[in-house]
Parts: sequence; structure tokens; C-alpha cells
Amino acid sequence: MSDPLRLGIAGLGTVGVGVVRIIRQQAALLEARTGRKMTISAVSARTKGRDRGVNLDSYAWETDPVALATRDDVDVFVELMGGEDGPAKDATEAALNAGKQVVTANKAMMAIHGQALAVLAEAKGLNLRYEAAVAGGIPVIKTLMEGMAGNEITRVMGVMNGSCNYILTRMEDSGKTYQDIFAEADGLGYLEADPQLDVGGIDAAHKLAILSSIAFGAQVDFDGIQLEGIERVSIEDIRAAGDMGYKIKLLGVAQKTGRGLEQRMQPCLVPETSPLGQLDGGTNMVVLEGDAVGQIVLRGAGAGEGPTASAVMADVCDIARGLRMPVFGQPAAGLAQPKSAQSKTPAPYYLRLALVDKPGALAKIATVLGEAGVSINRMRQYEHAAASAPVLIVTHKTIPADLDRAIAAMDATGVMSGAPVALRIEEV
Amino acid sequence: MSDPLRLGIAGLGTVGVGVVRIIRQQAALLEARTGRKMTISAVSARTKGRDRGVNLDSYAWETDPVALATRDDVDVFVELMGGEDGPAKDATEAALNAGKQVVTANKAMMAIHGQALAVLAEAKGLNLRYEAAVAGGIPVIKTLMEGMAGNEITRVMGVMNGSCNYILTRMEDSGKTYQDIFAEADGLGYLEADPQLDVGGIDAAHKLAILSSIAFGAQVDFDGIQLEGIERVSIEDIRAAGDMGYKIKLLGVAQKTGRGLEQRMQPCLVPETSPLGQLDGGTNMVVLEGDAVGQIVLRGAGAGEGPTASAVMADVCDIARGLRMPVFGQPAAGLAQPKSAQSKTPAPYYLRLALVDKPGALAKIATVLGEAGVSINRMRQYEHAAASAPVLIVTHKTIPADLDRAIAAMDATGVMSGAPVALRIEEV
Repeated sequence: MSDPLRLGIAGLGTVGVGVVRIIRQQAALLEARTGRKMTISAVSARTKGRDRGVNLDSYAWETDPVALATRDDVDVFVELMGGEDGPAKDATEAALNAGKQVVTANKAMMAIHGQALAVLAEAKGLNLRYEAAVAGGIPVIKTLMEGMAGNEITRVMGVMNGSCNYILTRMEDSGKTYQDIFAEADGLGYLEADPQLDVGGIDAAHKLAILSSIAFGAQVDFDGIQLEGIERVSIEDIRAAGDMGYKIKLLGVAQKTGRGLEQRMQPCLVPETSPLGQLDGGTNMVVLEGDAVGQIVLRGAGAGEGPTASAVMADVCDIARGLRMPVFGQPAAGLAQPKSAQSKTPAPYYLRLALVDKPGALAKIATVLGEAGVSINRMRQYEHAAASAPVLIVTHKTIPADLDRAIAAMDATGVMSGAPVALRIEEV
Repeated sequence: MSDPLRLGIAGLGTVGVGVVRIIRQQAALLEARTGRKMTISAVSARTKGRDRGVNLDSYAWETDPVALATRDDVDVFVELMGGEDGPAKDATEAALNAGKQVVTANKAMMAIHGQALAVLAEAKGLNLRYEAAVAGGIPVIKTLMEGMAGNEITRVMGVMNGSCNYILTRMEDSGKTYQDIFAEADGLGYLEADPQLDVGGIDAAHKLAILSSIAFGAQVDFDGIQLEGIERVSIEDIRAAGDMGYKIKLLGVAQKTGRGLEQRMQPCLVPETSPLGQLDGGTNMVVLEGDAVGQIVLRGAGAGEGPTASAVMADVCDIARGLRMPVFGQPAAGLAQPKSAQSKTPAPYYLRLALVDKPGALAKIATVLGEAGVSINRMRQYEHAAASAPVLIVTHKTIPADLDRAIAAMDATGVMSGAPVALRIEEV
């Protein structure tokens, strides 16, 4: 029997408490599975006194996470504080410099500083694991990095922010506006302290950047993501998309093209009968595509105490079992900076137009689309009382630039009574 | 850079050829990901001359898989011959005895001889990996054994035989009988040489036995599975289940109860809106439930060259990266023999009855059900021309033994005009 594996846990919010709970309650199981006892040497958090519903008396308390990370009696530093800079990054660097293994749930830190931290970890021969950073309890990093190691990855997609999916699902169910449901979700505590991280797509984009790096063997490149949140998704579009057989999801997509790495995080339409289309509420789903395996779909809880702690513990158990793996699946020092490409991948698009109610209005729009090389697959004009006629169009596959030209030209026709809405339809 | 990892591949059917192809085509990627070159030293198969669409000239040819498994220039023996005994088992044992790592796709061998092989492998400090044995390209073993290592597993479910799911889906789509679609599937080459392995549920039960062992830390126990194939699923039941909002799937379920380990592989009803209910055609789905993570759903191709070879390569890459893991996730020598329990877990049931068209017939059946303690949730009697009245019943949760008593008592009522059909409704 090996020596115990001694943890130091920084951050005692929901996830940290969940990790402590698992280690206390599943001691026998963890030892049977990893061949090592697991102990907690020390913990740290911003406030000491608070009752967290779990007994912390037997663990040393450190005020400073850097001090925690470098303690002699810590083998694995578990970083659950969050935040891309500040104490999380300081303590992670300190831990690696002191020769400690690191497990983190910090998507922002990995998306922004992952490359530098990976180089540091690998230079020291250490693991830096972050399963909990992407899609909560779903072991997506493990699946991509290990389970699909024999594949050239062709595309990665996912609905990876449960709060956004909750808002979009609730809008659809209730018929209420984005503003109403945003307020409801915020009131229920479903949103980050800075809600822009959720609804602006930033949190989900952090996760996509991490997956892209693993999938395509490139340095993590958050800035290369074409990013749009869900703030502009209207209840009209959710209804109209539903009429055409689609759901609107905040969907992340990464794929390698001849021009470079395309990374998009934006509201998209997906067929309502597809696995992504059927994903309601706060659940996450990731779709991984490889040349040999085809499509693998993973679905599970994207957040919460148990699921996130489960992912943290998977990393801790891997380390206990002696795993050693490059941080992004290949030696970080050899990862290229990706050439990030604006999307030129053709896709069908959904258009919602408001036209003035005059003869020939629709013909003018059809002409503009045709001249830009955008061809119409399906079209619906609804009965209307007001002077503005709602028109829905689903295009055939279109290069984004062609669509942009068509939309720019619509203005000049004089038949638009409002700004057009265009959303990509992702083939899933 | 470490020495190359040298493979010996026994079995050059679809999967073997797929593995050779990946190793030839993805050499650079595999080396980047594992830090080692991968080479093939030797191959073996039943017939040598056949054109397999891949160049085997640079590999030594062995007629005898045991000779292949024990060659000095083989580090990893890749067993892709299949069959629970015979050459596959002989060569696997020989490989382990000679100190070779083993990767296999052989579900029958692992389900029947897994425990003994695991004890042998672990005594030698070797890996015996078998990701490809369960659910083809889906990394379900990795997810369960590593990704959920911090969880007490509560239930494992899955649709793990694509041929059965294809037959059931085709019956539904076409309205044709089991016999018709069986013949069609057989003609298309979708079934094993011995189709009973597929339609009798044996192949899927092998997979369930393997997952159970990992999930519940017990010796693999194929004989403990309550097993029923799809041969008796009628088109009438598929239609009637559809009317009530359900699909019929050959579903494997394993769960630990106070009485022991329940393992069932049988046709079940699942809600048509659930992920399992929406699984059409040859795709596989596995649902894993843990106390911390909740439910994880995995979906992907369950068979075929690329997917199965992808799973084999995941194991090979793990070995190249230096993984060392007990065969079933915990030391095999310490695994208990499971106490296998007949299912006493209550579940709702679907009943299809044919009653004689006489006043009071339904009342008699209702009385019999009530006396056995089976209560009715939903009931439908259909308009009918013949003398036999079709009646559908969905019960509330019922202990299987109570239902059995009720069914036995129905015969004595004198109002049955045919044998009753009872199918479990699994809550998913």
C-alpha cells in the first residue's frame, strides 16, 4: 500500500464542500479504487467561521492560498476559488513551483493562462488537471483527451452554460421575454455574480477554448472565439424557430478548416428532434466528432455541488492512480498558436424580416438575396394585422459573407420595417 | 523520447483492419499524444492471402495467435479474434504469462473469464483493457472506471446491441413483424454469425455483466443476469406501447439493492421522450448514475470498423502513456462474488390482454389485479371487430412477484382469449 495522498483544498464554496464531503464519506471506496488513502491536510477560504455543513475541524486552516499550496504535507493542490487571475493563479503557480500536482475547476484561468501554466507544469513533470472546468460532471476532457486519442477530431460542439439554456427553455415554455426570464433566473440565484459571464457567453466560451485546444492540438485561444451571448434572442425568434422545427441554443462550435481554427459561441438554431434540440433546462451536452469514431454525445449536469465535485474527484483519483499526462493532451511547449479564422463554413441560416405591407416587398427581398448568392430553402409569411409583415426564411447553405452582403443590401430596398434577424442553423 | 510501443494484432476482421489503418494513418498524431512511436510487429488471422484493403507486408505473419502473443518484439497483444474460449483466451493467457500488456475487444471472454484473467494480469502487474468490448466507440468503461471514480454508482442502464435496436426501430417504422425484419437484418449482414447472440440478448448481457462488475465492485457475473431477448416482441406491442407514449427497447439494467445485485437484460418500455426512447437504429446509449454526479448519458456508434477501432486505440494510447489500472477498477483478487438477486425492485408494468367479449370480463381482470396488490394507473380498451377485446393497462409501481401472481390468476377467470403480455416500464 502506498502512502496516503494528501490534499490541500483552496475555496470552500459549493464545489469545495462537495469535494470534502466525498472524501469523508467515500474513504473506503476511494482507497479500493485508487490503492491509496486520501486525506485532507489543510483548507482555505475567504471567511473562516461560517458553517458550511461539513466538519472541517481536523484540517489545518490557511488564510493564504499560496501558503496552503506550498505546505509540506500537501501532495495535490485543489484550486476551487475561481477567477482568471489573483489568488487562484498565484496559488496554482506556487503549487507547481513547489512540485505539487494541481487539480482545478477554474475555466477562466485555464482558458486565459492555460498555456503558460501547462508549460510550467510539464517542465516540472506535474499534472495540472481541470475536468471540472468544462461541462460540470460530464467527463468531457477525459473522453476527448483519452477516449478519443486515436481520432483526428473533426468538430466539437456543445451547450455548456446551463443558465443560458435554462433561460432559453423558460422563454419558450412561458412565452415571456428575455428580460423577464433573466430577472427570474437572477432572483433564483442561477446566474454568476457578474451575469454577463453567463448570458454574454463568456463562461461557455472559456470552456470551448479549452476543448478546442485539446481537440486540435493548438494553444488555447479564447480571444479567437467569435462570441455572441443570448441577450438579443427574442421570444419572437424562439416562437418562429419553433414553427420551422428548430430550437435556439447558445451553441459552441470549434472546427478546423483549411483557413485555420474556427471557434464560434453564438445563439444557433438546431433541429428540435436532434439530441441538442431536445436538451432542456440546466443540463449540458457536448458533441464530439472524430474521424474514426464518428459522433459521441455526452449529456449530464453542468454545474452544482455533486456533479462538479465528481469531476474534481475524477482528476484526484487519476493522480492517485499514478496518471501522468500533458495538460492539453500533447506537450504544451510544442503546441502551435492557432491561426484563428472567421467563420467561412457555409451553413443554412434563419432570417426573420419585418417588411412594409406593400406589393412587391417580398420580391425585392428575394432579389437582394439572389443577387448576393443566397438561395431560399423555405419561406413563410404570416397573416398580420399591423402594417409590418413578418417573414421567415430558411436559406440553403450560405457563406456568412454572402449573407452579410444580402443583409446590408436589404436596407437600401426601402421595404424593411425593422432590423432583420439572422441566426445560423448548425447541422448536428 | 521513449522506445516505440510494439503491437501484435491477432484477428484481421473489420476491427483489426481498422486498428491497422489508424496506426498507419495517424502515426504523427499518436506519437504527439502519447510521446511514443507506435509500430506493429506482427499480425495473425485465420486466412493469410485475402486482400483486406490495407498493406500488411511490413508486418511478420504468425499462423498461431499464441506464438504472436509471446513474440519478443511485441509489447502489447491486441486480441480481436472474439469468442469466449479457444484461441482468444489461450493467446490472452499466453500474452499475460509472457509479460505482455493486453488490449481486447472480446466481450464474451471478459464476461465469462474476466475475473480469472484479471487476477492473472494484476499478479503480473499488467494491464488488460477492453474499452471496445462494451458499446463500441463510446468510452463507457473509461467514464465509469475513471470519470466517475468519486461516485458510488447507483444504476447502470443501456441499449448496447445495435442490431436489436435496429430491428425494433424498423418494426416500428415499417409495421412489419419481428420475423420479417429479422430476415431483412440478417440479409443485410447486421447480425452475428449466430444471430441468437444478438436477438437473444446474450451479446448485450455480456456487456452489462462487464459494466456491473466495474460499477459495483463485484466479480463479473454473467450467469446472474435475468435474460430475455427480443424474439417475443410483437408488432402489436410496439404499436400499443407507442399509443401509450412508450418505445420498446432491449434494455440492460444493473443496480445494487438490499438483497444483492440485480442485473436484467430484457425488452422494456421507456418514455418516448426520454433519451433512451429517442434512440433509433443501430446507435448505442449508456446511462450511468452516481450519487454525486447524478445521471450521465453517453451516445454513439456501438459497432463498426472506425468506432470499435477507436476504442481499441484509446486503450493502446493509455498503455503508451504509462497507465496502470486494475482490470475492473479495483484489485480483482479482492472482488467479492456478487449475491445475485431476482428483481424485486418495483416498477410500473405494461400489460396487453386479449379478453373475451362478454359483459364483466374487464371487471374480473381488474379484480384479479386488485387482489394481487397490482393497481391500475391507465387503461385503454380498443374498439374491436373480432370476439377478442384488446385491453392495454399501465400499472402503478408493482413488485414483480405480485404481477406474476396476478397473471397466473388471470387464466382461471375464464375471460382471457389469449396469453397476456407483460413488459416492465423502466424509469429513466
